Amino acid sequence: MGPHPAVAAIRLAVRRVLHDLLNEHQTSAEPSARPPHQPSPLVLVACSGGADSMALASALAFEAPKLGIRAGGVTVDHGLQAGSDLRAEEVVLRLRELGLDPVESTAVSVGREGGPEAAARDARYAALDAAAERHGATAVLLGHTRDDQAETVLLGLARGSGIRSLSGMAAVTGGPGAARRYRRPFLELDRQTARKACMVQSLPVWDDPHNADPAYTRSRLRHEGLPALEKALGKGVVEALARTAQLSRDDADALDTWARQAEASVRDAAGLLECAKLYALPPAVRRRILRQAAIEAGAPAGSLFARHIEEIDRLITGWRGQGAINLPGKVVAQRQGGRLVIRQG
Amino acid sequence: MGPHPAVAAIRLAVRRVLHDLLNEHQTSAEPSARPPHQPSPLVLVACSGGADSMALASALAFEAPKLGIRAGGVTVDHGLQAGSDLRAEEVVLRLRELGLDPVESTAVSVGREGGPEAAARDARYAALDAAAERHGATAVLLGHTRDDQAETVLLGLARGSGIRSLSGMAAVTGGPGAARRYRRPFLELDRQTARKACMVQSLPVWDDPHNADPAYTRSRLRHEGLPALEKALGKGVVEALARTAQLSRDDADALDTWARQAEASVRDAAGLLECAKLYALPPAVRRRILRQAAIEAGAPAGSLFARHIEEIDRLITGWRGQGAINLPGKVVAQRQGGRLVIRQG
Repeated sequence: MGPHPAVAAIRLAVRRVLHDLLNEHQTSAEPSARPPHQPSPLVLVACSGGADSMALASALAFEAPKLGIRAGGVTVDHGLQAGSDLRAEEVVLRLRELGLDPVESTAVSVGREGGPEAAARDARYAALDAAAERHGATAVLLGHTRDDQAETVLLGLARGSGIRSLSGMAAVTGGPGAARRYRRPFLELDRQTARKACMVQSLPVWDDPHNADPAYTRSRLRHEGLPALEKALGKGVVEALARTAQLSRDDADALDTWARQAEASVRDAAGLLECAKLYALPPAVRRRILRQAAIEAGAPAGSLFARHIEEIDRLITGWRGQGAINLPGKVVAQRQGGRLVIRQG
Repeated sequence: MGPHPAVAAIRLAVRRVLHDLLNEHQTSAEPSARPPHQPSPLVLVACSGGADSMALASALAFEAPKLGIRAGGVTVDHGLQAGSDLRAEEVVLRLRELGLDPVESTAVSVGREGGPEAAARDARYAALDAAAERHGATAVLLGHTRDDQAETVLLGLARGSGIRSLSGMAAVTGGPGAARRYRRPFLELDRQTARKACMVQSLPVWDDPHNADPAYTRSRLRHEGLPALEKALGKGVVEALARTAQLSRDDADALDTWARQAEASVRDAAGLLECAKLYALPPAVRRRILRQAAIEAGAPAGSLFARHIEEIDRLITGWRGQGAINLPGKVVAQRQGGRLVIRQG
């Protein structure tokens, strides 16, 4: 008798990612040609002790040895709740029980920049990056599910800043010095499957009280917003949101490529942007060039909103002799003699 | 003392659209050079008697004469509720009271194709097209607000079929034989402003019971889904969704243009699609070419889902000798000698 369908599903998802990793590894160093003293590659799982990442850890522990991969784990103690250090120690024990090695807990101090959720995320990834470097890990697996992806798309939608913000989390992303470090094997798997897989494997899971705290936007979205949306639009909403993420990501990548290529062709000999040439581009391409020019002039990307780009764009498409436009980061955009000049004022 | 801010807002929105219409009209026939016997242009408002379209009618009645434009109105009797004919007559009277001329009620019979909402919409636009032709109207104004736009974006999101379905309603769209017939002056105005404008002008409004009927997806979205989303994400959601619509529309237009241009370059001398050349394109562009090729081969656009395109795409990006792929409309896609052949089987 094979494993429970939920367990089969989480294992398959992890197996696929491990195969990808081996294939990428092969390109640089043929494993059959690997000298015997070179250790087998190490893959770490980032584990909070919640159902998603515990399921991920169990699948990694099962699949990695069959492929000659070493499986390890890291849990991050954010220090945001009383007893979080004890909780981290408990996760370490559970990961060791699954057979992972090395396993470690790493404590971080969470700042305030960008709000509590962003600050915790920044601290977490810095710790994971450091752990990956320390252990020479090939990759770090993250337990984000399709439900997390759907929530991320809705959070991006609420910003209203275009399709890049609808593209959610990538299946593969980088960290400093490692462009493809993070992998999300469960991005097409629903949360319910991960939870079920823990249950049938008798893995105790921990429910982070933050996830149910209505002070957090994501928690409100999970427990109220998304269920109401499903009630109105039908059960396929989560899947539709996840698919939107993938399609938006590809579209945004293609348009960024186009804008990069077009950018050189709209500059004059002195390197200034020519308004007439910008005018001839599709608005979607032109606005990406304008946004990039503002960022290169020193405007912080995070403070640059659609309305700012809209205003610069009107210097091109609705020219009535308007004056200089003030942008975040003390950057100024103005039209001079048919050229668009964007620089720090 | 000027008008109430809500009334000022609806009038400004209509005035802008009327100016656009006059500008476009000028391009074809300079009005100062218009022979005296040529009648002034006619603009119709499509009016259900609800707050949005009554506000629109009142603003049109106020603004049009000042610009030498004739203002008329049409109400469509869908025949879906008992007494809908009397209701239509009442709307006709109200529009006449506002000074609109000509005003007419037109009865349609709503079919079943595509579900109740789509069938009603198809019948309604056919009647509006016919009325515009009959009266020689330059344009037909529609009362869709920013809230309607936000709902439309969420409905598109639920389909999960990419950014075109996120682009909502256009400010300007066509009908048969008139590419820019329909105008939506209130697309950046919220529903509350339209309702307020009716109230302060003492215009009686009719609340369509369909709008509150939970049998309709849009109604569930309006009364449950969107409020829950606002509660989770904050009050700016409607505005963010409307902005997403505009940005997605521009992005989708640009990518369609790119795909159209790239399409010729990936065909061989015999006009067949070359897999190697398709492979070299960005996925977003390649998938648009594949989708268009399937539609041209006879696959109905409405039945062609993201997963179909995904499957055709794997003939290019994940070729392992797989067999022919069956698509809607008896269309078959297969790879033969490095060429992609898509045709009705």
